[in-house]
Amino acid sequence: MAQVSTLPRNEAGIETAIGILKQRFGDRLQTSAAIREQHGHTTTWIENQSPDAVVFPHSTEEVAEIVRTCAAHHVPIIPFGTGTSLEGHVNAPAGGLSVDLSQMNRILAVNAGDLDCVVQPGVTRDDLNTHLRDQGLFFPIDPGANASLGGMAATRASGTNAVRYGTMKDNVLSLEAVMPDGQIIRTGHRARKSSAGYDLTRLLIGAEGTLGIITEMTLRLQGIPEAISSARCSFPTVDAACQAVMMTIQYGIPVARIELLDEMSVKAANAYSGLNLPETPLLLLEFHGSDTGAAEQAETFGQIADEFGGTDFAATSTTEERNKLWQARHDMYWASLQLRPGARGISTDVCVPISRLAECVTAAQDQARELGLLAPIVGHVGDGNFHTLLLIDMDNANEVAAADGFVGWLNDLAISMEGTCTGEHGIGQGKRPYLVRELGAATSYMSAIKAALDPDNIMNPGKIL
Amino acid sequence: MAQVSTLPRNEAGIETAIGILKQRFGDRLQTSAAIREQHGHTTTWIENQSPDAVVFPHSTEEVAEIVRTCAAHHVPIIPFGTGTSLEGHVNAPAGGLSVDLSQMNRILAVNAGDLDCVVQPGVTRDDLNTHLRDQGLFFPIDPGANASLGGMAATRASGTNAVRYGTMKDNVLSLEAVMPDGQIIRTGHRARKSSAGYDLTRLLIGAEGTLGIITEMTLRLQGIPEAISSARCSFPTVDAACQAVMMTIQYGIPVARIELLDEMSVKAANAYSGLNLPETPLLLLEFHGSDTGAAEQAETFGQIADEFGGTDFAATSTTEERNKLWQARHDMYWASLQLRPGARGISTDVCVPISRLAECVTAAQDQARELGLLAPIVGHVGDGNFHTLLLIDMDNANEVAAADGFVGWLNDLAISMEGTCTGEHGIGQGKRPYLVRELGAATSYMSAIKAALDPDNIMNPGKIL
Repeated sequence: MAQVSTLPRNEAGIETAIGILKQRFGDRLQTSAAIREQHGHTTTWIENQSPDAVVFPHSTEEVAEIVRTCAAHHVPIIPFGTGTSLEGHVNAPAGGLSVDLSQMNRILAVNAGDLDCVVQPGVTRDDLNTHLRDQGLFFPIDPGANASLGGMAATRASGTNAVRYGTMKDNVLSLEAVMPDGQIIRTGHRARKSSAGYDLTRLLIGAEGTLGIITEMTLRLQGIPEAISSARCSFPTVDAACQAVMMTIQYGIPVARIELLDEMSVKAANAYSGLNLPETPLLLLEFHGSDTGAAEQAETFGQIADEFGGTDFAATSTTEERNKLWQARHDMYWASLQLRPGARGISTDVCVPISRLAECVTAAQDQARELGLLAPIVGHVGDGNFHTLLLIDMDNANEVAAADGFVGWLNDLAISMEGTCTGEHGIGQGKRPYLVRELGAATSYMSAIKAALDPDNIMNPGKIL
Repeated sequence: MAQVSTLPRNEAGIETAIGILKQRFGDRLQTSAAIREQHGHTTTWIENQSPDAVVFPHSTEEVAEIVRTCAAHHVPIIPFGTGTSLEGHVNAPAGGLSVDLSQMNRILAVNAGDLDCVVQPGVTRDDLNTHLRDQGLFFPIDPGANASLGGMAATRASGTNAVRYGTMKDNVLSLEAVMPDGQIIRTGHRARKSSAGYDLTRLLIGAEGTLGIITEMTLRLQGIPEAISSARCSFPTVDAACQAVMMTIQYGIPVARIELLDEMSVKAANAYSGLNLPETPLLLLEFHGSDTGAAEQAETFGQIADEFGGTDFAATSTTEERNKLWQARHDMYWASLQLRPGARGISTDVCVPISRLAECVTAAQDQARELGLLAPIVGHVGDGNFHTLLLIDMDNANEVAAADGFVGWLNDLAISMEGTCTGEHGIGQGKRPYLVRELGAATSYMSAIKAALDPDNIMNPGKIL
């Protein structure tokens, strides 16, 4: 486990606040070791730092009451969605209270005419899409995990569809939040755009719960397109695949998804998902549009792929074939783990300008090889974003150290290429050193904002800054 | 003129700082009455509040030097682009120094492969698009005026293309700014997306120069589409036109522009631009795509229009016809003034959910009629955003009061419809009361951020908050 530092604990305050809230919330406040551990960090390799208790509010007013109690006693509050974040976002390095929002899971309104909806933060993206399907609508952001929408907003999540539909910052019209002093605010209403004052919506999106707890969101929706089709194409090299991606974006083909699997990932997918793909870099695409439009996009992409030595191009508009391919993509984490049974998968995320992508991915492959690390790569390459999954024997200290070194090296490389140390996973605990390397002096203004809004540092302390 | 309050002046500090900067900048610091007045508010009806001097920096370092000098002497700084904002953004209610960024007008890089560019804030959108044309690229945001890109970012501008391409918040990847203490920061680099820390990019976009001066921007670009075509269609009522808009958006037709002209605006356009359009509500559209795609969009829109009683539908893909129509749209301000020669045009801007648009526009027409005000309406209706241009005899106190009442009434109406008091013009001085009505408690956190980053309130004081 990677060690992360603990912070001083306010024992007396924690005991008092939990006592008060236990009286108020009864069984909806839990202190068992199992539940506490489940609400500390459980994904990838950062050690678990459990909260002292977990509370399950049902309403914004209840969240406000919890925050006011914790504020009065200077007790840390860690908002919790589904716990699928990857950089230690839900850990409790100073102890305190995990606020689990999973029971605030109501869809409050769907305004089909306006292509928007209002949801509580505990609604998951699958729940929302299931609810919307009959109305011909969908919410496009898909980070892979069936995360809660509140957690997705708090971490500025994105995923495979971002190349066309943007990230959470582009798909939340406004939100309601409980601020560190317990006051409830709305950052906007249902207008598609607004120039009214500072953009508190975007400030809270990606703040990872360090500036307030999101308690309601107004989301943009999309109509389910008339046609959805898929294509896949193999390439001789990562460079050739990336050149094809760049040309596709430059041509303005409105691809909905364009994913890269490197040769090792393809190998893993073949074995795990019973596919028979050439074991060279693969692009996997999805097109949304009218029947004619989607077909035209696939055809144009086929021509581009051809120019860059693409082989085994296959397009399909049948739902079954499409689902099979995308299921394989979604199962990549499990497929990759099978490359080395017993290993832990450590996913690290960077994003670079697309013109540097081939160079960055190839360098990452070479570096992993040099360090003797097994590290399949998949990427949302339309955005220049990719994930390296390091398969590590956690009992081998040398290997863990090599993986740690690799992560630092890759983040520095991405930053040196005018990219970012995280395209979508966020900073949490794991990436704090890289944030400073990437943004330097700007982080001091982030700290000033944090101090202004949360002077006692009770909202998710030890994250981002 | 609408009166706006002045703020206490720091005479000694202003004199000292201007003295120091005059020595440093020589002729690039101007104090003539004409130049000072030109740098106070000159558009629409808010009175002019001139700065004490205007300085023309050439580099980020010079901006930082100016800010450090003003900070040391507690002197207000008002960033100035082209002065086309509408709500008093460039006024100097406490005096101080206007920092005119028009000479920082270099395009520093165009990265065609990444569809981005790096520009100084004084580059105007026309300059940028002229520069990009040969490379098959364009920057889509078009607020009408040939504004500076720095000013457009500072006011979170949008305009006719926003329905497809978003607003400035969606098209600035990152920026460099001089903060109120004179420190230079970068909020990000050239990655398409990032989850690295608080979104300072979006915080500075729309902050109207109250949190810092934008000195460089990395912008997203688009490829010029293969085909651009236009269509127009007349409707019996505003309601019918808005129903057609709503259906168009719901169908997922990726219209690049969809503009409403109400009957009075059409009348003005006919007279001014020599057109012969039916004098009923008009929708004016633009489609971007492949040849097939753009044609298909126009055809589908034609079917929708038909369903809602649209008449005189005409689509064109010839550049000449298209330019004529859009030139008429761009000239609406001048055309409308001709409805009442000698009157001043007061443009007020609201944005509502699209399902409420017809109701809001119709109510605005009725209210203007009841008050005896001539008030043509045009709107970026794909976003639910529209502008009412009140044509006012400024020597008639009753009329001015009625206009003032109308603006307040319309803003309250938009807010009551879950909309916003400004879709794109910003708050400036003119809309400060409505910001509080719209966002209530949230504004206290805006004030806390302002106080944390600019404790002496030197950056564009008297705006937004």
